[in-house]
Amino acid sequence: MYSDLIVESGADLAQDTLGTLLSILRDGQPRTRAELVQLTGLARSTVSQRLDALLFHRWIVPAEHAISSGGRPSTAFAFNPRARIVLAVDLGVTHARLAVTDLSGSIVAERTCDVAIAQGPEPSLNWLLETFTELLAGCGHRMADVCGAGVGLPGPVEHDTGRPVNPPLMPGWDGFSVADWLGSRIGAPVLVDNDVNIMALGEHSAAGPQTDHLLFTKVGTGIGCGIISGGRLHRGARGAAGDIGHIRVPGSEVVCHCGNTGCLEAVAGGGAVAARLRAEELEAADARDVVRLVRAGNTWAIRQVRQSGRDLGLVLASIVNFFNPTEIVIGGDLADAGEHLIAGIREAIYGRSLPLATQWLNIRASDLGASAGVTGAASMIIEHVLTPESVEQSIRS
Amino acid sequence: MYSDLIVESGADLAQDTLGTLLSILRDGQPRTRAELVQLTGLARSTVSQRLDALLFHRWIVPAEHAISSGGRPSTAFAFNPRARIVLAVDLGVTHARLAVTDLSGSIVAERTCDVAIAQGPEPSLNWLLETFTELLAGCGHRMADVCGAGVGLPGPVEHDTGRPVNPPLMPGWDGFSVADWLGSRIGAPVLVDNDVNIMALGEHSAAGPQTDHLLFTKVGTGIGCGIISGGRLHRGARGAAGDIGHIRVPGSEVVCHCGNTGCLEAVAGGGAVAARLRAEELEAADARDVVRLVRAGNTWAIRQVRQSGRDLGLVLASIVNFFNPTEIVIGGDLADAGEHLIAGIREAIYGRSLPLATQWLNIRASDLGASAGVTGAASMIIEHVLTPESVEQSIRS
Repeated sequence: MYSDLIVESGADLAQDTLGTLLSILRDGQPRTRAELVQLTGLARSTVSQRLDALLFHRWIVPAEHAISSGGRPSTAFAFNPRARIVLAVDLGVTHARLAVTDLSGSIVAERTCDVAIAQGPEPSLNWLLETFTELLAGCGHRMADVCGAGVGLPGPVEHDTGRPVNPPLMPGWDGFSVADWLGSRIGAPVLVDNDVNIMALGEHSAAGPQTDHLLFTKVGTGIGCGIISGGRLHRGARGAAGDIGHIRVPGSEVVCHCGNTGCLEAVAGGGAVAARLRAEELEAADARDVVRLVRAGNTWAIRQVRQSGRDLGLVLASIVNFFNPTEIVIGGDLADAGEHLIAGIREAIYGRSLPLATQWLNIRASDLGASAGVTGAASMIIEHVLTPESVEQSIRS
Repeated sequence: MYSDLIVESGADLAQDTLGTLLSILRDGQPRTRAELVQLTGLARSTVSQRLDALLFHRWIVPAEHAISSGGRPSTAFAFNPRARIVLAVDLGVTHARLAVTDLSGSIVAERTCDVAIAQGPEPSLNWLLETFTELLAGCGHRMADVCGAGVGLPGPVEHDTGRPVNPPLMPGWDGFSVADWLGSRIGAPVLVDNDVNIMALGEHSAAGPQTDHLLFTKVGTGIGCGIISGGRLHRGARGAAGDIGHIRVPGSEVVCHCGNTGCLEAVAGGGAVAARLRAEELEAADARDVVRLVRAGNTWAIRQVRQSGRDLGLVLASIVNFFNPTEIVIGGDLADAGEHLIAGIREAIYGRSLPLATQWLNIRASDLGASAGVTGAASMIIEHVLTPESVEQSIRS
């Protein structure tokens, strides 16, 4: 029994050691071998062996000569963010944004394109692979340099398996294993999540770790929310957390396509606002047209966007009481209407939420805008790639 | 610069080593010195030194003689849950429950008493100290054996400082440092939180770690919610998370004491239900009287409790869409009305929440009942006391 335990824990030991060393070195400050021995309490031979492996696989690089108190200077080592690159994509229904980043999340190359996700998974993903291959070539890289990919999709995703689950806007994608299909072709792990979750990760990485509890709300045709609790993405029991589009707006009886009445999406989404403008003989097919009218100063459009903000704010007011976020970030097509939407949201939240919960609450438009998705997709896969398990595996393989 | 770093990290090193050893030993399985060296990758001298300190302070005990392959048998060491005891108290407005537990959370002694929290903090806490002293004596312990106390209070608490914040039912307690006052008298750390949060911790520790996302809803005169996200208590930006009593119930215009209309508490709380029963000439001062009438089979009382469940369910339905919990546990005085309340809650949630979010959702009455609070208060302080920082400090002092 004991010997089983010890054999099994050989890998654990190696991983724990790597994890300890990486977590120290990832802050970017170079450290000597002696410092690492002292900082970790690990045996000198263990530290040396792990450093050699990390050096050999370029996870770390010799950085500078540290000043030692007499004798010859010792070499210091630093984490190497250019050791590998990752692919990040925010795949929308009609548009896609692709990025290649290093391990610090800095964007090396980026591209936005039109795409028709409705053509099904294989044509869409083949197109994605070709476009990534071009993008890599343009910045002097090959697919072999890629250590992982983060993918955002416009529908519900089972994160653990990387498969869409009954996605309403993605015909043919239900249950298709995006992670396996892409992973086997790029030869590296692929993590998949819905677009709102990766945007929340992106906004959180931009806001900084002191923003513990962040809600990212995307207001487009649909309305969804990405939730950061205690610095971590809250996906919920079935990955369905943040699906606020069908929460009832108090007082509304509008019939929603889901069969219920008063759903937030049917009351305050971009399509609902556009429909109200069409009823006033204005030309508005979707949220983008609404934004165009608002920017042109159309009073009726401004009035409707503000009302959409108030209705969204009524639902967020309940969520603020329940969740007590540090910050609420608003993004999505309708957010481009600017302060009119945010003003309506603030009005309702401050009118209805508890004083303690709103005292320091920051409600603002997204800083990252259209880049939030790829920023978050990159951050999601980088955190995975830099786990001790993954680094250990890259060294063994 | 480097030498500063290394001096500062001396304590970190010791803590990390302790943390590693304790996390291995807390599973209860005895390990020999050689196994611990192999499991941790730490230098043999480091492991020996830390084990000696842990043994000296009784955090671990020699457990059994492991079978070695020839030579004399080696001593194995195991975590000692009886190394210290903790105090746990769930202090209500009129009742208190006190417990003494070991470091596994097993209750050694327990007592429930009447108490008048409105007499202010010092008389209440002096009474608490005296009662704990008696309880300790009764089970053969002294205050010197106590390594920490967990306290639940019936109002908002700033957890980091252990102070109530404008607690409506606790006159004189606003800003009083319960943690400092008690901590200096028992000579050990004290953690304080509101009653609903400690109950959520208790229910989560009873439900087991596979229940990642749990909501505990307390339905008494007031209504509040404790939130577990990813196995951890979600307190929110200002510790106000879970304050759902003033979320608006769709369709209701009842005026609440807070000045808003349609607040959940004013519609579905024990006081509101009792008031509706009094309007029908029934004798019902509070939630307990309502439960008495329900148990006696009074049709009107049953009807009102079920309606209270439906109204609560309407608010929880929105929260289920947003949060996608694994489990919702219902407690508090009105929960003693049994399945009538839960049936109303289920009816509204299944009628309004998204199918994906309710597919595996478990909605049930509390198993722990009145013990949830002390169970959670003990669990909160035990997790704190067994952090490497705390164990290290106990060894140094």
